[in-house]
Amino acid sequence: MDTKTPSAALTDWPIEPVDPSLEPRLRARIDGKAKPLGALGRLEDLAVQLGSIWHPLLPRAKRATVFVFAADHGITAEGISLYPASVTAAMVATYLAGRAGVSALARACDVNVQVVDAGVDANLPAHPELIDAKIRRGSRNAVHEPALTIGEVGDCLTRGASIVADSIEAGTDIVAIGEMGIGNTTSAALLMHRLAPVPLANCVGAGAGLDAAGIARKLAVAERAVARSSATSSLEVLAEFGGYEIAMMAGAVLGSAMHRRPVVIDGFIASAAALVAVRLQPAARGYCVFSHSSAERGHRALLDALGAKPYLDLGLRLGEGTGAVMAVPLLRAASGILTEMADLSDVMAGTLQPWRS
Amino acid sequence: MDTKTPSAALTDWPIEPVDPSLEPRLRARIDGKAKPLGALGRLEDLAVQLGSIWHPLLPRAKRATVFVFAADHGITAEGISLYPASVTAAMVATYLAGRAGVSALARACDVNVQVVDAGVDANLPAHPELIDAKIRRGSRNAVHEPALTIGEVGDCLTRGASIVADSIEAGTDIVAIGEMGIGNTTSAALLMHRLAPVPLANCVGAGAGLDAAGIARKLAVAERAVARSSATSSLEVLAEFGGYEIAMMAGAVLGSAMHRRPVVIDGFIASAAALVAVRLQPAARGYCVFSHSSAERGHRALLDALGAKPYLDLGLRLGEGTGAVMAVPLLRAASGILTEMADLSDVMAGTLQPWRS
Repeated sequence: MDTKTPSAALTDWPIEPVDPSLEPRLRARIDGKAKPLGALGRLEDLAVQLGSIWHPLLPRAKRATVFVFAADHGITAEGISLYPASVTAAMVATYLAGRAGVSALARACDVNVQVVDAGVDANLPAHPELIDAKIRRGSRNAVHEPALTIGEVGDCLTRGASIVADSIEAGTDIVAIGEMGIGNTTSAALLMHRLAPVPLANCVGAGAGLDAAGIARKLAVAERAVARSSATSSLEVLAEFGGYEIAMMAGAVLGSAMHRRPVVIDGFIASAAALVAVRLQPAARGYCVFSHSSAERGHRALLDALGAKPYLDLGLRLGEGTGAVMAVPLLRAASGILTEMADLSDVMAGTLQPWRS
Repeated sequence: MDTKTPSAALTDWPIEPVDPSLEPRLRARIDGKAKPLGALGRLEDLAVQLGSIWHPLLPRAKRATVFVFAADHGITAEGISLYPASVTAAMVATYLAGRAGVSALARACDVNVQVVDAGVDANLPAHPELIDAKIRRGSRNAVHEPALTIGEVGDCLTRGASIVADSIEAGTDIVAIGEMGIGNTTSAALLMHRLAPVPLANCVGAGAGLDAAGIARKLAVAERAVARSSATSSLEVLAEFGGYEIAMMAGAVLGSAMHRRPVVIDGFIASAAALVAVRLQPAARGYCVFSHSSAERGHRALLDALGAKPYLDLGLRLGEGTGAVMAVPLLRAASGILTEMADLSDVMAGTLQPWRS
């Protein structure tokens, strides 16, 4: 395989670890709010995370953007998906038309949608909500060769990070990541297997809805890809089993962490991207908010490998960032605990007098 | 006790049952959307409920209002709460100042907050966000006498229903209900015990944070109230164990159902109010959306009695409508599945062309 190292020394990207020693101070502040101790449950945990990320400032959680990274996968030639690869481009058109699942859910949660063409196998005309970051028209077939070159991996990571950086620069407080790419649960399963690590059979699931025979076939294909490569370094594993959209999501995670913003991780595939990012830079973990438990088989073990306990369990398994956008109101709420709630001492002292103008 | 019947024959209030035969048609429509079958999980179930409620129209889920019903409880004289009764009025001031938990969470979820004085033991000056529906300055002590008169129960139910009706008339699509009232977990536990029914010890919990000794004391107090009355009819039980805010919430549930709008139920106490409403009028059940699993002990059994499976499990136990407002984005998302998502057939046929203007 191409062993050229990526242009930037990714493991040297400056990510400031979230300081765990802030937690007691933030807990004390939350405990002083106008509510019984602990009564806001897991929202209090999230408030601690956001408070730590934003320290010494108060967290800000108004403007949220979900990036839907899209790409095609050479491994679809092996017949591992229920849908033809052409669905990837068709769904990109659906996002841009505002008519997809993520479109409806993002509108419901006041989240801006940006679509990123990381490697769709189609020529996509320019559109205001489409970011052209296409590396190639689809990855290579990982059964026969590395899906990405090492150079492409570096390009994906830097592009993912810079897309997020530009958005934060323009005012985004909350970054959310999701994806579209027929075949990408196979790619995510391979990455998880090698990097978590978890036995392959526990990583391969139904994806968009395979039956037992389909899953068995998908597993056999994945086994062939695994057998071809003994790579263990995160960058090499990412190149081997790839996915342009997955590599770019890993870059988006690193970019959010570098700019000290929370990044909301969608489901199985986005979590695999987060795993890659955390393996590259463990300090990125503190910036990740894992939104929901996907119904996809391997997600639970993948979350365990990341030490993550998601906030929502709605049985979603659509991808596109749908679970991530549903968690955005939780981040806004958690931020509001710190920034908007009165202290109980003020309530008891009667200093809040809404009737005085 | 006062056996005067309420002015309106409540069980005759016109509530059109949600038609279960609509489900297959709505499922088929959802299955045709641009996503794998079932991939939006429990949001699809919620979409079926909203579609059934709004049939033959498409659901509308933009404007949401949470009503925080507040009242005091005579039973607090028995020392069953961690906080003094004066906290009820102090928290009402905090809601009106926009500085409470529900204030922050409602803002995060774009939900309007209205506070209802159902029976706070304080003189509360007029305020634009305060609805004066005070029945009395606090209920009577249910250990010694019925907490409410039957006449008061009727007044609460009709006022709760008319408050909601006015709001729907003014454009509210989604009604959410929550409460504030020091001592009201005891009231809710008593109602649940008699109406679910569930053994009393499984209904009495920590409330705002009692320790084991406090819970034992609360249970002993509740047992004295239970021993005093053998009432079994819903109206009489409501009068015995009361709570003006609980009775008014039951009226709000009935009012939402009469006007064919979903009503989002908060935690333990709001669920007890929903139980009363459903016992009075079983057809109201189809309009109730149970938002979250509270950390309060009896909530799970109460939800089971209602056949309810909530959508969120965030460990909340604050009340105030905090859990209900967090579920509002889910209703908006579920509505959007039906109203905004394209059909997969259109996606595959290439009829969505965002590049054509």
